[in-house]
Amino acid sequence: MSLDEESIIRLLWSGFGKTGGRQDPFDDDAAWVKNQKTKRFVVGKADMFVASTDAPPQMNAAQMAKKSIVACVSDLAAKGVRPDHCLVSVGIPKENANTDFVTMLADGFAEAESKYDLRIVGGDTNAINSDTVIDCSIFGFADQLVLRKGAKPGDLVGVSGRFGAQPAGLLILLGKARSSDKEFEKAAVESVLEPRARLDVGLRAAKFLSSCIDSSDGLAISLYHVAESSAVNIKLDRLPKFEGVDRFAVENGLDASQLVLFGGEEYELVCTYPKKNERALSKFGFTTIGVVSGKAEEKPEVLLGDEPIQRKGWLHFKSNPLA
Amino acid sequence: MSLDEESIIRLLWSGFGKTGGRQDPFDDDAAWVKNQKTKRFVVGKADMFVASTDAPPQMNAAQMAKKSIVACVSDLAAKGVRPDHCLVSVGIPKENANTDFVTMLADGFAEAESKYDLRIVGGDTNAINSDTVIDCSIFGFADQLVLRKGAKPGDLVGVSGRFGAQPAGLLILLGKARSSDKEFEKAAVESVLEPRARLDVGLRAAKFLSSCIDSSDGLAISLYHVAESSAVNIKLDRLPKFEGVDRFAVENGLDASQLVLFGGEEYELVCTYPKKNERALSKFGFTTIGVVSGKAEEKPEVLLGDEPIQRKGWLHFKSNPLA
Repeated sequence: MSLDEESIIRLLWSGFGKTGGRQDPFDDDAAWVKNQKTKRFVVGKADMFVASTDAPPQMNAAQMAKKSIVACVSDLAAKGVRPDHCLVSVGIPKENANTDFVTMLADGFAEAESKYDLRIVGGDTNAINSDTVIDCSIFGFADQLVLRKGAKPGDLVGVSGRFGAQPAGLLILLGKARSSDKEFEKAAVESVLEPRARLDVGLRAAKFLSSCIDSSDGLAISLYHVAESSAVNIKLDRLPKFEGVDRFAVENGLDASQLVLFGGEEYELVCTYPKKNERALSKFGFTTIGVVSGKAEEKPEVLLGDEPIQRKGWLHFKSNPLA
Repeated sequence: MSLDEESIIRLLWSGFGKTGGRQDPFDDDAAWVKNQKTKRFVVGKADMFVASTDAPPQMNAAQMAKKSIVACVSDLAAKGVRPDHCLVSVGIPKENANTDFVTMLADGFAEAESKYDLRIVGGDTNAINSDTVIDCSIFGFADQLVLRKGAKPGDLVGVSGRFGAQPAGLLILLGKARSSDKEFEKAAVESVLEPRARLDVGLRAAKFLSSCIDSSDGLAISLYHVAESSAVNIKLDRLPKFEGVDRFAVENGLDASQLVLFGGEEYELVCTYPKKNERALSKFGFTTIGVVSGKAEEKPEVLLGDEPIQRKGWLHFKSNPLA
């Protein structure tokens, strides 16, 4: 029997915890411990990038390096934490252990370092069988964190950007869809090959937010994670659709709402905030798309209008039902 | 052209460093940054365990998990730093994504956590092609560090244990050697499958040491690293031979000194200290094996008696010249 990722994590986690008082691994985007001396949080996030499942064939080594960093930075951004230092381990198969590939990896890391103002302080390299693996661990320090839990009835629900371009770009790259809108096509493909983390926005917005998560697993599941961690219901009144997604969907016989809700790896922030902060947040580019409609009685619900949204997330591209 | 590990690291590193003032990645066992607020060091170490090169066929999943942690803990131990929190990323091929394998991994992690008093606070899991990968990142805090540089002429050179059992055990596990001494065979095999980090010893010894490194790359190369970082020459007057290695070597037509000097993954501490600290250190099990014989004029030398020791290290077992 082959276990899915959630079962593997639950099994692994059940083995730990002898010291008690540990976070649930599904409870938030990053892990933290409170330093008893400084009373500050040390916040850490690891992400393992595996080329065979995380990289479409067109992604080059520099883009792989950048994406591996983006995945971690995005999670810290959602917690309002500035990434500080980073360890990078790479596993390189024989066929990629050449100057071109490694130089591109290095360039990608350097670009991400400078873009997100972090320092790669160490790491490890290894030979590996038939796959390229990059594991980043990024740490930062913070006095306060924005958690997934914290959404309150009456809060507004907002996002830092628009959705749907990423799954469209992936379908285009995999040769499963086309677009007559060349500008959209370019933006969609770039959103896959050159994703960026919303670090500036996350840091500046943090003090205005009651909860936050990054959308790397998709918009729908991210909303469910906030609802479940906060024990509230969420009701959307609109979808944050990337411009051109409707036309793309029509041209390819797809459902635009599905692309918006069940894409993933957009690395946008999905959050809640008191009404009084809406104006401040709009200056950082946040758009309100709904409201925390009340405390959850049993299972938290996420609705679009009066229709429940399916609780499903992004799967790695090889098993992505969209692809 | 296929690059070796050192070339890959040098290439990767040359791409970083835009922010300047960075450690050389070959300069020490772990990476650190000084926290400007607390004036303490944050010390980190990542190690990527790759089953195809780091695990002999007999190693089970619990042992893999433990070894991946030991590799990191050992490097912090050599710096005199207590490991604090840990992120663990695992890449599991489809054929291992089953309850038995994952439960054993979890058990191994839990055992290592408790043994080294650290907390696994988060991580990541991934599907991967045809290899098992475990990347650990461990962080700790320290007011002071024991570095590779720091050895001074007149200091003694010592080790926390004995050498030669690990390469013998590996040869036995790979079916390339045998031993008529069943006790030695058991100890040798266990040193490969169940290595342990010298954390207690490293923490207690730190204040008595002028330099330290862990021997994971082999005794000879570790001595060279200390000599080179400290710009000194080292002269050994004896080898710290594991009991039974001589007989094992004779039985298998091998050279016992080679097993002692060019094995690896023993995870012992190799260090230097002022003569006045020798007694204190002997209580923790350190044995003096030589002396820092003087400042290095040009290339630092490591001698056994009057004979130069070859500057070569441990290679992953697939390419290990001993194997």
